[in-house]
Amino acid sequence: MARKPSPERRSTPERIVDAAVRLFAAKGFDATTVQEVVEAASVTKGALYHYFGSKDDLLYEIYRALIERQMADLDRIVAAGEDATTTVRRIVVSLVETTAESVDETAVFVREMHKLGADRMASFRAERRRYHETFRAVVEKAQADGTFSSRVPADTAVLIALGVVNQLPTWYRPDGPKSPDRLATEIADFVLAGLRP
Amino acid sequence: MARKPSPERRSTPERIVDAAVRLFAAKGFDATTVQEVVEAASVTKGALYHYFGSKDDLLYEIYRALIERQMADLDRIVAAGEDATTTVRRIVVSLVETTAESVDETAVFVREMHKLGADRMASFRAERRRYHETFRAVVEKAQADGTFSSRVPADTAVLIALGVVNQLPTWYRPDGPKSPDRLATEIADFVLAGLRP
Repeated sequence: MARKPSPERRSTPERIVDAAVRLFAAKGFDATTVQEVVEAASVTKGALYHYFGSKDDLLYEIYRALIERQMADLDRIVAAGEDATTTVRRIVVSLVETTAESVDETAVFVREMHKLGADRMASFRAERRRYHETFRAVVEKAQADGTFSSRVPADTAVLIALGVVNQLPTWYRPDGPKSPDRLATEIADFVLAGLRP
Repeated sequence: MARKPSPERRSTPERIVDAAVRLFAAKGFDATTVQEVVEAASVTKGALYHYFGSKDDLLYEIYRALIERQMADLDRIVAAGEDATTTVRRIVVSLVETTAESVDETAVFVREMHKLGADRMASFRAERRRYHETFRAVVEKAQADGTFSSRVPADTAVLIALGVVNQLPTWYRPDGPKSPDRLATEIADFVLAGLRP
């Protein structure tokens, strides 16, 4: 899995985005000022504007960094060319683990993404679509060769798998009774049972 | 299914909440003023404050009205005492249909609920828990008597069913290719396949 860089290895833009995520999660996007982000990240305002043109850019970057890691995982998993059951299990494990280690990022994005401007929103939709379609193609191929049942369209199966993951920030607690690994196994088991011929 | 009252039958507080939902969905909770809600609902400020002490009360009421309808549906479906497969299918159909006809309400709540004060948040969590536990008890009972598989804990199966429904406002379009009925059938088919022994 493509992990988040550890704090000591973070670059200046990574530290800025990290400070922005914590502030947006705690106070909300509208109530957070660029000055507060600058202070929390211990950088100058000039440094922030060197990397990000606006607060909007920061909000988009939170999402872009997360989906880039998830998309890289997905491409790597699909390229490995394992059987469909193994591939779907690995996709679900990657999604649950990256989301569980990025609950603030996911929560901020779920709450605030509708505030993105039209261009950013178009990029967001395009990246989300690419993820969805790559995942769906795995399911469709396995449905075509009879490995998976065609009872439910691949589209809906993918929306179900992604739905529980995107909702995870509303109920998942890092100190809760289930590890991300345990949760991922249960979700993958359920999704694969739903796809069994 | 407990339907929303039709526009002409709406009471003053219902009209106020309806205006608030449209404004919160379009502009966001923070950017909407009480004056704007009053104007959009064609009521006086006094009338609004007669029913709602604050904007916070309005936000909570949006959620309360929706979960009250969903909880009433759930209690009615469970009380009917049908077999577990029929009961789960009816629960999913009720959830998808009430959510599809309340996408603005669901979207506003998903985005803004973290702004509720501590008391309101506690009520919200208690109502959500009651819904979750009632649904889970249906699955657990059927797992105990062998109607459903125990492969995946009932808790996780319920989170998966609720996850896709709560995410629906991010991708569902009333003018899209699938009716709420069709979507509900597909989701119920998938969930029931995942629970099959």
